[in-house]
Amino acid sequence: MKLRFEILKKDKDTYARLGKIYTNHGEIDTPIFMPVGTNATVKAMSTDELKEIGSQVILNNTYHLYLRPGMEVISLFGGSHKFMNWDGPILSDSGGFQVFSLASLRKINENGVEFQSHLDGSRHIFTPEKVIEIEETINSDIMMMLDVCPPYPAEKEEVEDAVRLSNNWGERALNARKTDNGLFGILQGGIHKDLRKRAVEELCRLDFDGFSIGGLSVGEPSDMMYEIVEYVTPLMPIDKPHYLMGVGTPIDILESVERGIDMFDCVIPTRNGRNGMAFTSVGPISLKNNRYRTDTFPLDENCDCSVCKNYSKAYLRHLFKSKEILAARFLSYHNLYFFTKLMERIRISLKEGRFKEYKKEFLDKYLNGGLK
Amino acid sequence: MKLRFEILKKDKDTYARLGKIYTNHGEIDTPIFMPVGTNATVKAMSTDELKEIGSQVILNNTYHLYLRPGMEVISLFGGSHKFMNWDGPILSDSGGFQVFSLASLRKINENGVEFQSHLDGSRHIFTPEKVIEIEETINSDIMMMLDVCPPYPAEKEEVEDAVRLSNNWGERALNARKTDNGLFGILQGGIHKDLRKRAVEELCRLDFDGFSIGGLSVGEPSDMMYEIVEYVTPLMPIDKPHYLMGVGTPIDILESVERGIDMFDCVIPTRNGRNGMAFTSVGPISLKNNRYRTDTFPLDENCDCSVCKNYSKAYLRHLFKSKEILAARFLSYHNLYFFTKLMERIRISLKEGRFKEYKKEFLDKYLNGGLK
Repeated sequence: MKLRFEILKKDKDTYARLGKIYTNHGEIDTPIFMPVGTNATVKAMSTDELKEIGSQVILNNTYHLYLRPGMEVISLFGGSHKFMNWDGPILSDSGGFQVFSLASLRKINENGVEFQSHLDGSRHIFTPEKVIEIEETINSDIMMMLDVCPPYPAEKEEVEDAVRLSNNWGERALNARKTDNGLFGILQGGIHKDLRKRAVEELCRLDFDGFSIGGLSVGEPSDMMYEIVEYVTPLMPIDKPHYLMGVGTPIDILESVERGIDMFDCVIPTRNGRNGMAFTSVGPISLKNNRYRTDTFPLDENCDCSVCKNYSKAYLRHLFKSKEILAARFLSYHNLYFFTKLMERIRISLKEGRFKEYKKEFLDKYLNGGLK
Repeated sequence: MKLRFEILKKDKDTYARLGKIYTNHGEIDTPIFMPVGTNATVKAMSTDELKEIGSQVILNNTYHLYLRPGMEVISLFGGSHKFMNWDGPILSDSGGFQVFSLASLRKINENGVEFQSHLDGSRHIFTPEKVIEIEETINSDIMMMLDVCPPYPAEKEEVEDAVRLSNNWGERALNARKTDNGLFGILQGGIHKDLRKRAVEELCRLDFDGFSIGGLSVGEPSDMMYEIVEYVTPLMPIDKPHYLMGVGTPIDILESVERGIDMFDCVIPTRNGRNGMAFTSVGPISLKNNRYRTDTFPLDENCDCSVCKNYSKAYLRHLFKSKEILAARFLSYHNLYFFTKLMERIRISLKEGRFKEYKKEFLDKYLNGGLK
């Protein structure tokens, strides 16, 4: 079936919306946070644990899976769902961002982008059509078009080129699609409002199933990001999902939901977890801090995840200091649980018409609630 | 309560026995394999998963936990059980082996052993009494006495010294015990039958709750190990548990059960798992092998563990090649399941009076059953 988006309620005070996305592998309640499973695994987590936590959709990465294990392998399983044992929706990142951040010796032209694998130096070409073919092999429920993602800061000419190329590639991606899997357009334009406007005007005319804001969260200050989001979302089709790629912290998420964003993905919960950082209702804490050596309390006394129910900060710090895999597991689990619960509470507050109040309650506690 | 051992059945053909150990934290069916939880974590595994697999008792390591997190931390939790969220029996290795294999600048005398931490170079002294104090802080259900464990090969004089010192220390360990936690003696003697005999004669007169054979599986050939086990076990008290420390492969375990061993521990299932090796009913396989790249079948078609039910060799190889934590998790899980099932089947075969047949069946398949 064709991907469908339904808006259940619009917030009276802000641009925030409560919604639902219907995909070939199930429904997604929005606003949603999507854990990142680059290599067809959300790092350190089993898919059983993701279900336990309440994750509804996870990411796969086109660039990484194309290079390893390769599409020959994924196609043996009819896609990534069976390969990685996840029967819920999968969104596949197009690989554009990785080509521009990881791969070397890039050559970009109207047709596509040639690059060298960061794994073995082998040369490859991604075109909009090729990427759709890969994503249809992955059988992702929400495919992202190939785009050109400049770094921050970048010359305006470079950003303008990125908008022009991405917009052309968007049309080619749509034409290349052979399945009824969802396909999202990606809006570039960096921090330039005129380019953002142009991106929307050209790309949002096309029949994408949703639109994402790309080219943010690449190093610019948070306030600048919020400003661009605030500028772009009202220009985007109101009846399509709005996805802010690669974002973010709990604060970023609240600020962006308020500005009309429905979907988020970020490696922060898992990557920071592996680095000994835990999100809590009174702000983030680092288990590197010696004060937790003898702390017999859970990471967050307001959290009812299985890690907080069974383990102390002292034990988790011990695992982290001992470089034990269990530290990465438990901190990733807790952090993903924290993000999932945050989104659930955002949705509840939207349903109850009290999003602004919830945001204030959360931030008051998160920013001032405890010693760090 | 005092640790108790009950022999339920003796094998008619061999020295093998079916038994049960009663501890303060539950019962242990023997012969048993005990996963190694050096740092109060069985590497990559949660305690929920250990229960799911059927693990009945796990190891902690005195040397490691004494150095990190330190007894100040463990004592805040009343021991390791609550610290690591494991309510079953814990056996604590005395640290003797680690002092002799990991620590540097060792000085050994009648009183004990002075050593330098492998973590920060700090100096410490282990005496038989000190080690019991640590193990009682860990609150392990089966404590091991401090022993002197020479490497292989070693001069016979060095092994003789190890026997003499270990035997003296055994008596001191017993006198130092303040709890009713179990305490096992450790028999040294290397590959020298006369020294093994002396170790047994001196140490087995003492009121230990069980005896272990130490100083094997330190580099000597398997046949030599089997020969020493075969020589020693008939000399050991028949009504006490016999524990062969640091052993071993499935073959080692079957050969040693046959020779009268009741308890085993080894890092092989978890360490080899982290290195991409899986135990299967048709012999071990390495996921490094390129032939598994497109293998859509489970690790072992005769295995009903959750990894084999849900994942293919191709996926596990992909995780391993991508250095994903999930590879370590899944291979450790499967391998521990394999060892646990092996022990269950050994116990069933003993109950049914067909251990020799089971051993032959297992080995026929394990050694010749499939391509490696």
